[in-house]
Amino acid sequence: MSYTFAISPFMKHLFADEMVVGLFSVGQDLAALLAFEVDLARAQEKCGVIPSGMSRKIETAIDKVKVVENEFEAGLARDGVVVPIMVSTLKAAMNPEDARYVHFNTTSQDAIDTSLMLRALPAMGGIYKNVQALEERLTELAKKFGSCKLMGRTRMQQALPITVGHRLDSWKYNIETAALSIQRLSYPVQLSGPVGTYRDEKVQKALAKALGLSVPTHSWQNERGPVLALGNACAGLTGALGKIGADIALMAQNELAEIKIAGGGTSSAMAHKKNPVKAENLVSLARLNASLLSALHNAAIHEQERSGAAWTLEWLVLPQMICAAAGAVHMAHALLQSVESIGT
Amino acid sequence: MSYTFAISPFMKHLFADEMVVGLFSVGQDLAALLAFEVDLARAQEKCGVIPSGMSRKIETAIDKVKVVENEFEAGLARDGVVVPIMVSTLKAAMNPEDARYVHFNTTSQDAIDTSLMLRALPAMGGIYKNVQALEERLTELAKKFGSCKLMGRTRMQQALPITVGHRLDSWKYNIETAALSIQRLSYPVQLSGPVGTYRDEKVQKALAKALGLSVPTHSWQNERGPVLALGNACAGLTGALGKIGADIALMAQNELAEIKIAGGGTSSAMAHKKNPVKAENLVSLARLNASLLSALHNAAIHEQERSGAAWTLEWLVLPQMICAAAGAVHMAHALLQSVESIGT
Amino acid sequence: MSYTFAISPFMKHLFADEMVVGLFSVGQDLAALLAFEVDLARAQEKCGVIPSGMSRKIETAIDKVKVVENEFEAGLARDGVVVPIMVSTLKAAMNPEDARYVHFNTTSQDAIDTSLMLRALPAMGGIYKNVQALEERLTELAKKFGSCKLMGRTRMQQALPITVGHRLDSWKYNIETAALSIQRLSYPVQLSGPVGTYRDEKVQKALAKALGLSVPTHSWQNERGPVLALGNACAGLTGALGKIGADIALMAQNELAEIKIAGGGTSSAMAHKKNPVKAENLVSLARLNASLLSALHNAAIHEQERSGAAWTLEWLVLPQMICAAAGAVHMAHALLQSVESIGT
Amino acid sequence: MSYTFAISPFMKHLFADEMVVGLFSVGQDLAALLAFEVDLARAQEKCGVIPSGMSRKIETAIDKVKVVENEFEAGLARDGVVVPIMVSTLKAAMNPEDARYVHFNTTSQDAIDTSLMLRALPAMGGIYKNVQALEERLTELAKKFGSCKLMGRTRMQQALPITVGHRLDSWKYNIETAALSIQRLSYPVQLSGPVGTYRDEKVQKALAKALGLSVPTHSWQNERGPVLALGNACAGLTGALGKIGADIALMAQNELAEIKIAGGGTSSAMAHKKNPVKAENLVSLARLNASLLSALHNAAIHEQERSGAAWTLEWLVLPQMICAAAGAVHMAHALLQSVESIGT
Repeated sequence: MSYTFAISPFMKHLFADEMVVGLFSVGQDLAALLAFEVDLARAQEKCGVIPSGMSRKIETAIDKVKVVENEFEAGLARDGVVVPIMVSTLKAAMNPEDARYVHFNTTSQDAIDTSLMLRALPAMGGIYKNVQALEERLTELAKKFGSCKLMGRTRMQQALPITVGHRLDSWKYNIETAALSIQRLSYPVQLSGPVGTYRDEKVQKALAKALGLSVPTHSWQNERGPVLALGNACAGLTGALGKIGADIALMAQNELAEIKIAGGGTSSAMAHKKNPVKAENLVSLARLNASLLSALHNAAIHEQERSGAAWTLEWLVLPQMICAAAGAVHMAHALLQSVESIGT
Repeated sequence: MSYTFAISPFMKHLFADEMVVGLFSVGQDLAALLAFEVDLARAQEKCGVIPSGMSRKIETAIDKVKVVENEFEAGLARDGVVVPIMVSTLKAAMNPEDARYVHFNTTSQDAIDTSLMLRALPAMGGIYKNVQALEERLTELAKKFGSCKLMGRTRMQQALPITVGHRLDSWKYNIETAALSIQRLSYPVQLSGPVGTYRDEKVQKALAKALGLSVPTHSWQNERGPVLALGNACAGLTGALGKIGADIALMAQNELAEIKIAGGGTSSAMAHKKNPVKAENLVSLARLNASLLSALHNAAIHEQERSGAAWTLEWLVLPQMICAAAGAVHMAHALLQSVESIGT
Repeated sequence: MSYTFAISPFMKHLFADEMVVGLFSVGQDLAALLAFEVDLARAQEKCGVIPSGMSRKIETAIDKVKVVENEFEAGLARDGVVVPIMVSTLKAAMNPEDARYVHFNTTSQDAIDTSLMLRALPAMGGIYKNVQALEERLTELAKKFGSCKLMGRTRMQQALPITVGHRLDSWKYNIETAALSIQRLSYPVQLSGPVGTYRDEKVQKALAKALGLSVPTHSWQNERGPVLALGNACAGLTGALGKIGADIALMAQNELAEIKIAGGGTSSAMAHKKNPVKAENLVSLARLNASLLSALHNAAIHEQERSGAAWTLEWLVLPQMICAAAGAVHMAHALLQSVESIGT
Repeated sequence: MSYTFAISPFMKHLFADEMVVGLFSVGQDLAALLAFEVDLARAQEKCGVIPSGMSRKIETAIDKVKVVENEFEAGLARDGVVVPIMVSTLKAAMNPEDARYVHFNTTSQDAIDTSLMLRALPAMGGIYKNVQALEERLTELAKKFGSCKLMGRTRMQQALPITVGHRLDSWKYNIETAALSIQRLSYPVQLSGPVGTYRDEKVQKALAKALGLSVPTHSWQNERGPVLALGNACAGLTGALGKIGADIALMAQNELAEIKIAGGGTSSAMAHKKNPVKAENLVSLARLNASLLSALHNAAIHEQERSGAAWTLEWLVLPQMICAAAGAVHMAHALLQSVESIGT
C-alpha cells in the first residue's frame, strides 16, 4: 500500500496511463502556466493592450529564469498557489518598466484554471481515443463470439439465455454514453482578472485561439461548470468500465467459466489460481471516482468572487479523477485484448 | 431531528417542494406503474402484438382492483419490487385467457424505470420553471441594486470593489449552467424485457408517445446514463444554489451587512438575532446532494443484465436528490424574494 | 421509486425497522423536546436555579397546548428549527412571570441535540439487541452446517476448500466489530446555552440522570464527536451486513448453489426465478450509508459557536443512517432465518 | 493543478508531512514487506514450524536480490499485488530446498496488510505527537489571549460576547476527540494464510512481538475493522482541524479582524492582500477526507474470503487519508504558530 497509484513506480503499471499522468506532473503544469503568460502577452500586444515586443521579452526572461525549486516551493507554501512566486521571478529577470506587463490584467486563478484546461484537453482527448479503441475491440469480440450462447442473469440469478453479442452490446452502450459526455466537454480559457470583472473579448479570443481552448461565455472563476463536467465525465467513464469489470469478474468465476482470459494474476500462495485482477481493479477505480466526485461537487460552493478552500479541494481531486479514468480505459483495453473466448 | 426532510410535517415547509415530493409518493408511483401497463397494452394492440380490446380490459381490472396495501407491502418485501404482486393482482381480476396479456413481453424493471421517468419529467420540468423564476428575480434585483457598490472578496479577504451587478451575474451564471444541464436531460421509456433483449421499435415508439417520453437508442436496464444524468443535474443545481446560499450567509454577517433580508429566523434564546436560515439550508442541501451523488455513481455498476443491489440503491438516493433540488430552488426563490437591499 | 424507503408504505416492509423509524417521527421528536424542557426545569428547580413548582406548571402548559401543526410548520420554516415556536407556544399558555422559566438558560440546539440522543439511545439499543440475535442465529447455523464443505474463494476465484464454519466465523467477526462500536457509543445530554458557555454541573447532572443520558465533559454544540461516532457505527454495521449480503448473493448463484434460502423474490416475468432480494438490499444499504457518512463528516465543520448549515445537514443524514442500520439488521436476520442449508 | 498533493515537489510544502508521506513510499513499503517475510521466518523457526537457520538465509537472499524495478512492476501489473514477484525473486536467490520456507503458510494479503500496519503505526504515532503539540500551542494561546473579548457567533450572526478562551476551548475539544480516536487504534499483524484459516497462536504472537504490532483476535482479511478505524480517525482529525480552519478564515475577514496572523499568502494581482491560505486548506483537506471515507466504507464489502476489488480500493484511498491527516496537523500547527493576536 504505497502512496499514490498513478506515480508510484509499482502502481503505475497497474493503474496508470503514463501520458495522462505526465500531463499532471509539475513540469507540465509549469510549462502550461508559462505558456499562458506568454500567449496572454502576445494576445494583449496584438490587441494593443500592452506595448509590442513584450511577449518576446517575457519569453527571454523565461529562458533566463532557472526555476529554483526550493524558492517556488516556499512561495507555494506561503501563497497557496505557485503563480505569485513564478510571476515575481519572471519580473525580477526583466527590466522594471517591462516587468509590469508580465501577468497583465490577470490573476493567479486565470493562469491556474487555464493551465488545467490546457492539460485536460489532451488528457481527455487521449482518453477518448482509447475509448474508441475499446469500442473497436468490442466490435471485434462481437464478430468472433457475438453469436455464442450465454446465460442471461438478473439479480445474480439465471434468467433466460442470451447471446454473447447481447452482453457485449450492453458494454458498448455503457461506453458510448461515457464517450458522449467526453465529446461534449468544453475547455475554456480563463481570463477574468482579480475579481472576475475583467473581460476583454478580443484579447480573450486571441488567447483562446493561441492556446487551442474555447472562449467561455462568462467568467468561471466561481461558476465551476466546466470542472464539474470534467468530473462527471470521468466518473461516468470509470462507472461504465466498472460495470464491465464487475461482469467479467463474475463471468470468470470457475463454475460459470463464461469467459477465458489469457494471463491473469498469479497468487503468492496458490499456484493454480488465475485472478481477474484487471477486472477487479476496474471496479476499484469506479468506486474511487464515485467518491471523489462528491468532493468535487462539494467544491462547487466557491464563496464570493474566488474561493481558496473550494478551489484547492478541486486540485486534490480532479487530477486523480482524470488519471483514474485514463488508467481504467488502459486497463479495460488490456483486459479485452486478453480475452480468448466468451460464452459457448 | 425527525426522519425525513421531504415528508416530515415539520421539515417539509423548510425544505420541500410539495409538487415534486408528491410525485414521489407511493400513490403517484403506483399510478405511473399502472399507466405503463395500460399504455403498453394499448401500444401492443395497435401494433397487433396482442388482441385488440385487451387494454380496455386491463383498465377495467384496475378499476376493480382495490389496492390492498398490506398485500402489496408483503409482495414488495418478498420480491424487492412491487410489480410482481401488482401484476398478479391485476391478472387475478381478469379471466385467465385475457390475463396473459397483462405485462406482456415486459418485466418489472421496464415498469419501474418508466414510472421513474414519468415522474422525473414533470419534476424536473417544475424545477426548471422555478429556476427560470429565480433568474427573473435575479434580473429584478440587478435592475434595482445592480449599480450599488460591493466589496469584491477573494479567499475570504477584501480584494477590489465591484458592483452588486457583478456578484448577481456570477449567481446567474451558476444557475444558467445548472439550468442547461436540466434542459439537456432525456426521459426515455424503458421496454426491454426480462433480460434486455426485447426490442419492438413500433411498440416502443407508440408507448413512448402515449406516455410523453422519449425513445431510447438502446436498453438502459444496465446502462444507467439517464439516471446518472438526472443525479448530475440535481447536484449541479443544488451546488449552484449552495454557492448563492454561502454568499448570502457571508454577506449577512453583521459587520459586513452587505445584504438586508426581511424576516430571518428567530432564536429561542436571543431575541435580537435574525438568522439567515434559508441561505444556510441551501448549503446543507448542496452538500447532501454532493454525497448522494457518490452513491448514485456507485450504483452505475449494474452487474450482468440487471442488478438488484445497484438498482435498489438508486431508489434510495435519486428521489431524495430530486426533492432536494426542488426544495432548494423553492427556498432560494423565497430567499431572494425577501431581499430588501444589497450593497451600498 | 417512491420517495423514502423508511416510511413509504411500500418500502418500509422491505427496509425498515418500525420501532426505530418511529423514534424519528415528528411525534417522538416533539415528545423528546418537551421532555427536555420539563426535565430541565425539574433539574433547575432541584438545584435552586428556578423557583420550585415551575416544572409542574410547564407540564400543565404542555397538556393545555394543542400543537397547532400549521403554526409549528410555519415557525420551523422561518426559524430553521422548531424550538422557538414550541417555546413561545408554551410560554403563551402560562402566565408571564412563570413563562420566563421555560427554556431557561438554554437554547434550541440544547433541546434538539438532547432530543436526538434521547432517541438515538433506544434506537441503537434496539439495533444492538437485534445484532445479538443475529449473532445467535449465526451460532445456530454454525452448529447445523459448520462442518459442511465450502469452496474458499479469493479474488472471485476458487482458492482452497474451507468449511461453512469458517465462512460463518468471518461473518460473525464482521458483526462483532460493528457491535463493539455500538457498545462504545455515548449519548450525552446537551446543555450549553446560546453560545456554548453555560455550564452548571449540578443541573446538567440532574438533567442527564432524569433523561437517562450521559454527562458530557464539554459542550458538543460545535464538537460533533458524538454525532460522528453514531454515523461511523451505523456505517460500520451496514458495511458488515453488506459483506454478508454480497457473500450470500454470490453463494446463491445457480452454478455455485452454496446456500439454499426459503422464499426468495419472485419475478414478474420469469416464474422460475428466486431472487436473493434481501441479500442484495444489504449491499444497497451499505453503500447508502457509506455515502451518507461523507455528508456527516462534511458536517463536522461547525463554524464558530454554532452552525446552521452543518447542523441541518446532520438532520438530513443521520436519521437515515440509523434507520438504514436498523433496517439492515432486520433484513439480515430475516435472511439468515430463511437459510435452509449452506455448503455440502 | 499537478497530480498529487503529497509528493508533488510543489504541493508537498503546502500540504505534506514528509515523514508520513515517506512511510507510504514504495521503498518503505518494500522494506516492510521484506521485514514481514524475515520476521515471519524467524517466528516460525522459533516455534519449530520451519527448520532453524532459514530466516538468516532469507536475509542473505534479500541482500543478494537487486530489486529489478521493471520486473517488479511487470509482476505487479500482472498479479495486482507485488508479493508474488517479490517472493519468487527471493526464492530464485536461494537453493530450492530452502526456498520453500520463504513466505511459508502465508499469502500476499498477510504481507501487504501487515506492511500497512507497520507503517500506519509510526504514521499515526507521529500525527498523535503533532496533535499534542497543537494542543500545547492552544494552551499557550489561551494563556496569552484567553481573557480577550470575542463576539460569540451562531448561524453566522452575532450572538453574545464570549472570551477568546471559550473559542479556543472549543477547538481543543475538537482536537481531543480526534486524538482519543487515534489513541484507541490498534495495529494488528495479519497472518491468516491463503483463505484465512491459518491460525498459529504462537507464531502469530512471536511475529507480532518482533514487528511491534498487536495480535488480532481473528483474521481481518475480510473484516476490515482496523482499516475503517484508521479511516474514521483520519477523517475525524481533518474534520476537527477543518473546523478550526473555517473559524480562522471567518475571523480573518477584514471587517471582523478577530485574529491577526503573521505572513499570509500574497496575491499575484493584489499587493495589499494577505490570504488565510493555511486556514482555507484545512477546510479542503477535511472535505477531501470526508469523501474518501465513503470510498473506504464502500470497500468494507470484502466478498468471500478475500476481495481484490475492495482491497485495492483501500490502497487507493487510505494512504491519502493518512497523508491528508498528517499534512493537516502540520499546517494547523504552522498556522497557530503564526497567530499574533486573537480578539480584543
